[in-house]
Amino acid sequence: MNRRPLAVALVHHPVVDRRGDLVTTAVTNLDVHDIARTARTYGVDRFYLVTPVQDQLTLIQRILDHWRQGHGADYNPHRGDALSLVRVSTSLQEALTDWGEAIGETPLPLLTGAQRQDGLSYEECRELTKTRPLMLVLGTGWGLAPSLFERDWPVLAPIRGNSDYNHLPVRAAAAIMLDRLLAPDEK
Amino acid sequence: MNRRPLAVALVHHPVVDRRGDLVTTAVTNLDVHDIARTARTYGVDRFYLVTPVQDQLTLIQRILDHWRQGHGADYNPHRGDALSLVRVSTSLQEALTDWGEAIGETPLPLLTGAQRQDGLSYEECRELTKTRPLMLVLGTGWGLAPSLFERDWPVLAPIRGNSDYNHLPVRAAAAIMLDRLLAPDEK
Repeated sequence: MNRRPLAVALVHHPVVDRRGDLVTTAVTNLDVHDIARTARTYGVDRFYLVTPVQDQLTLIQRILDHWRQGHGADYNPHRGDALSLVRVSTSLQEALTDWGEAIGETPLPLLTGAQRQDGLSYEECRELTKTRPLMLVLGTGWGLAPSLFERDWPVLAPIRGNSDYNHLPVRAAAAIMLDRLLAPDEK
Repeated sequence: MNRRPLAVALVHHPVVDRRGDLVTTAVTNLDVHDIARTARTYGVDRFYLVTPVQDQLTLIQRILDHWRQGHGADYNPHRGDALSLVRVSTSLQEALTDWGEAIGETPLPLLTGAQRQDGLSYEECRELTKTRPLMLVLGTGWGLAPSLFERDWPVLAPIRGNSDYNHLPVRAAAAIMLDRLLAPDEK
C-alpha cells in the first residue's frame, strides 16, 4: 500500500480516570507487547510510549532489553522484532518532535477517544494515511485529557460495535483501528 | 444488523506449542477480560473458555465471581457486564453442544489459524453470519491442533497486515476478526 509514515503513541499522561480527573496511569507490560506486535503486523513505523514518570521509563527499558538482547531474544525472537518499534518519550510533544526529526517532516497527530461524538470516518483517515505522516494517539485509563482536543488536531471517529457497550481495551481498540486504517483491501 | 447467533470459543486444548507439539495452555486472565469486552462490544452472544484442566476452571470461576458479584462488580460494573457472556467447557464439542441446546440449533464452528494458507474470505464469512449460527474458534499457544482442521469445518482466512510478521496476540486477532465480521457498514 502506498502510504506515508505512520506511528502510534500510547499516552499515560495527560489522561483522565473514571471520574474525569487528570491522572498519570502506569505503563502496562501487556500494552507494550500487544500493541507492538499489532503495529509490527501492520507495518507501523514506530510505537511511542509516553509517560513523564522516570521509574516507568526505566521499567520499559528493562522490558525492551530482556526481549531485544536478553533471554527473551533467544526464547522468542518475534517479540524483540516487534519491540524494535518502541520508543519512549516524556510527553506527546517530545514524541512528535522526535519522530518529526527522524522523518524530516512534521507528523500530524490523529487523536482517538471512545467518548467522542465527533471525528473523521475511517475512510477519510485511510485517505489521510496516504497524504500525511500521522501519529495515531491512544489514551490509557479513561481516555486522553480534554486539553488535547483543544488543539485543532483531527480526531478519529470512535469504534462502534453492535451494542451500547463502549469499553474496549486499548489493546483491542488499537488492533481494530490499525486494521481499519492500514489493512490491504483484499481480505 | 440482521444476523444469526454468534459465539466465540477460546481453546486451550487441543493446541500446539512453538515446536508443533500438542499441549494444553494455561488460561490467561487478560484473555478472558479482553475478549469478553470485545465480544460484548460487537454483540456476540456467548464467549466459551475451553480447557480440560479442573484447576483452571476453578480459577476462571473465581475471576467471574469477583467481577460479577464481588468487589469488582461495585468498582467497575462494565467488567461484570462483559463477563456475563463467559461460559466454561471442558472441550470444544461440549461447548458446541451446550450452545446448540441454548439456541435450539446446531452451530457451525468457524476455525481460525494464523498459519493457514486456505480459508474463506471475510466477505464470505460476513455473509455466513447471516445464514448460520456460528462459533468462531480461536486457538491459544501457537494455534489450534491440526486434528481440528480434519473435520470439514470451515476455516476463516488468516489476517494479513502489511508485513511478513504473523504473530498477533490472540486478543488482537479476536478484535480484528469480530470487527471485520460484525461491524456496521458505516464506520
